[in-house]
Amino acid sequence: MAKEKKLVEAITSMEEDFAQWYTDVVKKAELIDYASVKGCMVIKPAGYAIWENIQHELDRRFKETGVENVYLPMFIPESLLQKEKDHVEGFAPEVAWVTHGGLEPLQERICVRPTSETLFCDFYANDIHSYRDLPKVYNQWCSVVRWEKTTRPFLRSREFLWQEGHTAHATAEEAEERTIQMLNVYADFCEEVLAIPVIRGRKTDKEKFAGAEATYTIEALMHDGKALQSGTSHNFGDGFARAFNIQYADKDNTLKYVHQTSWGFSTRMIGGLIMVHGDNSGLVLPPRIAPVQVMVIPIRQQQEGVLEKAREVMDALKAAGLRVKLDDSEKSPGWKFAEQEMRGIPLRIELGPKDIEAGQAVIVRRDTREKIAVPIAELAAKIPEVLETMQKEMLERARAHRDAHTYTATTKEEFQDIANSKPGFIKAMWCGCQECEDAIKEELAVTSRCMPFDGEKIADTCIYCGKPAKKLVYWGKAY
Amino acid sequence: MAKEKKLVEAITSMEEDFAQWYTDVVKKAELIDYASVKGCMVIKPAGYAIWENIQHELDRRFKETGVENVYLPMFIPESLLQKEKDHVEGFAPEVAWVTHGGLEPLQERICVRPTSETLFCDFYANDIHSYRDLPKVYNQWCSVVRWEKTTRPFLRSREFLWQEGHTAHATAEEAEERTIQMLNVYADFCEEVLAIPVIRGRKTDKEKFAGAEATYTIEALMHDGKALQSGTSHNFGDGFARAFNIQYADKDNTLKYVHQTSWGFSTRMIGGLIMVHGDNSGLVLPPRIAPVQVMVIPIRQQQEGVLEKAREVMDALKAAGLRVKLDDSEKSPGWKFAEQEMRGIPLRIELGPKDIEAGQAVIVRRDTREKIAVPIAELAAKIPEVLETMQKEMLERARAHRDAHTYTATTKEEFQDIANSKPGFIKAMWCGCQECEDAIKEELAVTSRCMPFDGEKIADTCIYCGKPAKKLVYWGKAY
Repeated sequence: MAKEKKLVEAITSMEEDFAQWYTDVVKKAELIDYASVKGCMVIKPAGYAIWENIQHELDRRFKETGVENVYLPMFIPESLLQKEKDHVEGFAPEVAWVTHGGLEPLQERICVRPTSETLFCDFYANDIHSYRDLPKVYNQWCSVVRWEKTTRPFLRSREFLWQEGHTAHATAEEAEERTIQMLNVYADFCEEVLAIPVIRGRKTDKEKFAGAEATYTIEALMHDGKALQSGTSHNFGDGFARAFNIQYADKDNTLKYVHQTSWGFSTRMIGGLIMVHGDNSGLVLPPRIAPVQVMVIPIRQQQEGVLEKAREVMDALKAAGLRVKLDDSEKSPGWKFAEQEMRGIPLRIELGPKDIEAGQAVIVRRDTREKIAVPIAELAAKIPEVLETMQKEMLERARAHRDAHTYTATTKEEFQDIANSKPGFIKAMWCGCQECEDAIKEELAVTSRCMPFDGEKIADTCIYCGKPAKKLVYWGKAY
Repeated sequence: MAKEKKLVEAITSMEEDFAQWYTDVVKKAELIDYASVKGCMVIKPAGYAIWENIQHELDRRFKETGVENVYLPMFIPESLLQKEKDHVEGFAPEVAWVTHGGLEPLQERICVRPTSETLFCDFYANDIHSYRDLPKVYNQWCSVVRWEKTTRPFLRSREFLWQEGHTAHATAEEAEERTIQMLNVYADFCEEVLAIPVIRGRKTDKEKFAGAEATYTIEALMHDGKALQSGTSHNFGDGFARAFNIQYADKDNTLKYVHQTSWGFSTRMIGGLIMVHGDNSGLVLPPRIAPVQVMVIPIRQQQEGVLEKAREVMDALKAAGLRVKLDDSEKSPGWKFAEQEMRGIPLRIELGPKDIEAGQAVIVRRDTREKIAVPIAELAAKIPEVLETMQKEMLERARAHRDAHTYTATTKEEFQDIANSKPGFIKAMWCGCQECEDAIKEELAVTSRCMPFDGEKIADTCIYCGKPAKKLVYWGKAY
């Protein structure tokens, strides 16, 4: 009983302290543990299973668009990292440097990849000769290291898992098309599978990736009104190709530079899942991504026939293609309920002697707590329906929350007032110059999140300087 | 045409120079490329797809035994690596050391994991409290780094991909059982999927893993008569538990040390696949692991109806669950044949106007070159049969080769003679003392590969010292 109380009590309410609530959930739902190297994390089975599901589904979607997987080394020689000027400036301050191999000092120090543009360029420079070698549409699943000062589980850690796609194309148009295509893969995945609605748009030059011509992003709004950059796709034009001399002989026998893209999606989105869907009882996982979708919890399991029936139900649901577990441990039903809720398992089935007598079971939705009595014989048909409804409603709820926390400002005063008092996205027009963007960040502590693709014109002048406006921008505080 | 000739000519014959043949195959079959950090490799799509299939199938087999996946950091603080004496001695000379994070020197240097026993122990020491927390049966898929002086693609590289399982158990018996269970998973996988027969056995103390009580191994014989250690499973007893203080409260409320195991399987087995099955035309992949099982190659594809029919055939085979591609590029059929052979694709279908008229296609097995005319309507039924036969015969052929190169020695002279002139395994009795093992390595350049589980007694005395024999040992030259 001591442990049961601890499980329920130890979680801070999100209204009281959102950051502490987040930390409590990642620990209590057993997603991560801290590691002996500061800023690194142990991803535990419940957390890693979410990542496996993300990998599985994204990888399938990538391959449908012709992506092939590869693996490049984790090390980058310093001289290679330095070949593209903007890129090295962006990353050198936060890489981990290897200086010794075994007992010997290295002749040139090497860094652990913070991202692999330079490695892919080095590889492509050797591998691409002719237009017949194009396009290259490669991806790798790996870990990367960025030596951050302040870290938080999933959201910002010194090592994290991700995929990074790196492509090379004959033309600028094809590269741009691929950049947008992959952004849309991310966006659709977030909405269809993670039930997280996203704004698709372009980053300002200030916020774009080091070395990119254009960075596209999907931005999601967390429960506390902060934004999370959820996936980015970069068009490099031929900048890296020029720095690394990646040329191909075109059909007309002239040498041309390739055009490149890269795009990445990381374990940080597990943080997004928590902060979009979680509540004060813990994690809430959308059914499509949940490693366990249904937990069968027997009531009075010591009574004859209960566990047998519970196993029967589990087997029937498994046969229907659902991911199901049975909690037949010796804990009390109340403890099991609390645990299932903490772990965000979308549905539980309560099944006791009285239910069995009545030929029914009670199913309880994790998100709404709605209880539905269902004849046992109909569980395998009914539960997929309930899960689909839950999936859909979770997306709708997240979208309603986001929309309710998306504000429009047409004057500086309005903008200031919202930025100071209402957490969420602020839509406001911008003149396009970095001075205004810098000043807004400085004075109001919000940054430009993106210029949405479908950006309507809500005013004629820049929210800050009053000069003619060029772009609608979503502003916000970000993780 | 120049490229076609190059593709076929550039491969050295294995009889002439096996090492060069191997290097030619990994390059020509486009499995890897060299990287700018010496001793590291780029695993290209054709190579990585093999690894994905290995992962997929092994992971499925692991999970059937209750394994859960996790991810631990890639960094180990020096003080943590040093906690177990034998372990640090074994690995410290070959790790890569990180000394700087960004612009700052680290207070304590950290190494990139060469293997993760110490990290798992550190984690388990925090995570395990009671018998209820046991067993822990965790695994991770990741890359590891060992700063080797001499490297070869797949077989020995400074960074390689693998899985490492790490388990903790309440009793010594349970740990031993898990150690053997996972060795058997590896062995079955090698034989059933990779068509590589293996000897299951135990390593001598000299050859066991740094810090292990017992190391079990599967050993395969390559085409050149050298052995390849193909997967290992270690029983640590409570040695690491004592060094890291991993204790649990047992049912009787006393504190006990856990018993641990670890087991690993790596990309080196792609090298094994090449060296067991490859021939002078390139790679030969067993159907169950081949990323592409069937290549449809149209003849006179510019003639009306040929490409349409070829596509129809491909679609029918895909619908039958096969992994099929169509080579409709502009290369000549001969070039396409050579390429399909180089890449080890198990089966090709030749389909030209005359075949179509006759309502048939010619299928050609990669391993035997056997040609079989099959009515087009029967392809989808016939090809899975042919692939199964091929899978079976590849295993049989590899086993026959191994058996033909496994020798028995009962006298020192016989042993010397075989070691000097006949590449392969040598079965000989051993007294169990390390002096003899060292001397045999020193004088005859063969090492003990394993003491097989079913080791019969083929003589009464040690092959080297003549004292009473304890164990049958497989000796050989190894990669």
